[in-house]
Amino acid sequence: MYFGYNGTMRTRPGRRDEVVTLLLSGLEHPAVGCLSYVVGTDDEDADLIHVTEVWLSEQHHDDSLTLPETKDAIARAMPMLTGEFTSTRITVLGGVGLEVGNA
Amino acid sequence: MYFGYNGTMRTRPGRRDEVVTLLLSGLEHPAVGCLSYVVGTDDEDADLIHVTEVWLSEQHHDDSLTLPETKDAIARAMPMLTGEFTSTRITVLGGVGLEVGNA
Repeated sequence: MYFGYNGTMRTRPGRRDEVVTLLLSGLEHPAVGCLSYVVGTDDEDADLIHVTEVWLSEQHHDDSLTLPETKDAIARAMPMLTGEFTSTRITVLGGVGLEVGNA
Repeated sequence: MYFGYNGTMRTRPGRRDEVVTLLLSGLEHPAVGCLSYVVGTDDEDADLIHVTEVWLSEQHHDDSLTLPETKDAIARAMPMLTGEFTSTRITVLGGVGLEVGNA
């Protein structure tokens, strides 16, 4: 079992692509314990970004938020966001594309 | 860019784990074009299952639904579901765990 996190964030008009670029920066060095991290845009809502994540554990996820590069990305993204977020915590039971080699 | 699909399904009370088992059956032979397929349970809602998927294209996703094994799994799951579904179509722009080797 892994820890999953499905979230959305709403961007201020016209800022979506900048936020996506921020979210995808640094992926050549994924955080420890990150099995899956997917960033996408909503096909029916121009200002909505979806992020789905799978981590070895919730602790790995929480630890990633304390990394300087993560904090920096969040700080840069915040002014482009409306403050409307959704998040769901999930117990991941299996799937495709979750090879531990990604972690 | 890939095709992403985030969905939920609600199960009849007590049937969640059976449905999860069905959803995870056959994963040793993922469908063509499937980059990511994650099945999890909601940590705050005992009868809710989350499925997040990434495919090379929407056509690959649609084609997978016509496979006999997929149709069979859907037919077996249906009686255990309430009929309450959500789904969101997403344009996936990148991430971790999306190696095309999975496809």
